Amino acid sequence: MRKITLFLDTLKDIYYAEKQILKALPKMAKAAQSEQLRDTFEKHHTETERQIERLDQIFEMMDKPARGKKCDAIEGIIEEGKEIMEEYKGSPALDPGLLAVAQAVEHYEISRYGTLKAWATTLSMPKAAQLIEETLAEEKKTDDALNKLALDAINAEAA
Amino acid sequence: MRKITLFLDTLKDIYYAEKQILKALPKMAKAAQSEQLRDTFEKHHTETERQIERLDQIFEMMDKPARGKKCDAIEGIIEEGKEIMEEYKGSPALDPGLLAVAQAVEHYEISRYGTLKAWATTLSMPKAAQLIEETLAEEKKTDDALNKLALDAINAEAA
Repeated sequence: MRKITLFLDTLKDIYYAEKQILKALPKMAKAAQSEQLRDTFEKHHTETERQIERLDQIFEMMDKPARGKKCDAIEGIIEEGKEIMEEYKGSPALDPGLLAVAQAVEHYEISRYGTLKAWATTLSMPKAAQLIEETLAEEKKTDDALNKLALDAINAEAA
Repeated sequence: MRKITLFLDTLKDIYYAEKQILKALPKMAKAAQSEQLRDTFEKHHTETERQIERLDQIFEMMDKPARGKKCDAIEGIIEEGKEIMEEYKGSPALDPGLLAVAQAVEHYEISRYGTLKAWATTLSMPKAAQLIEETLAEEKKTDDALNKLALDAINAEAA
């Protein structure tokens, strides 16, 4: 059954990604100019810890060690974040740049968890599907919050 | 004005990404097992060409050479696609794996174009915002089509 291997590989991919995100968020919060953006990153840091715990539970259910697998996509997105923080330090473009990176991260996660949820259903793992759904709902909420911050910034500028 | 620099940098990022996607799609179409998935990739190849032309138009409007800037995120996602094609060749997990990669690509693009559209509006570039919106609508449609294929596969399996 190769599909369970694909599920497990993708679980390892997002596990690695979440751990990288956990490390990147405090740096992004520190760099953020607006208090609201900093708060959003800090709140998402706490959520990320919970999301990692849910992944731990799924590994346990599958009787597999919780282990990450290098995820080039998230490495690339986080690398872009580092460039933004260096290149736009002290510029009015810094927060919009950080917001854009955070949204790219959220979209990557939404895409991965959406896929994992569908596969968990195919593989008759309803408990795993439910845990993934909880995380997916949080990620979508975070993306909405980031969207709102981006729009607020645009409206403030237009005013 | 550093915000226009950020807009231009992000335009170069997605320009690079689209060119990489244009090269990857025929390989993904060739690897796909189901005819529907192959058709979807081929259709998206034609769309991608049109999306690149829209980006060319925006560079022209800004009087800047159309040039890509290495995008680590898309490199990472495409690298994952190559791994899937190698590791799952001949397996029933190949098409689901390709679908997952394609959805990660779509989400990356949706996130970037969403950001670019918002920035074009802030920067008083309504014509650019409109071109980006056209592409954004196409990307969302492609993501919906991929979602449908993924669900069809799950339902077929359950039947």
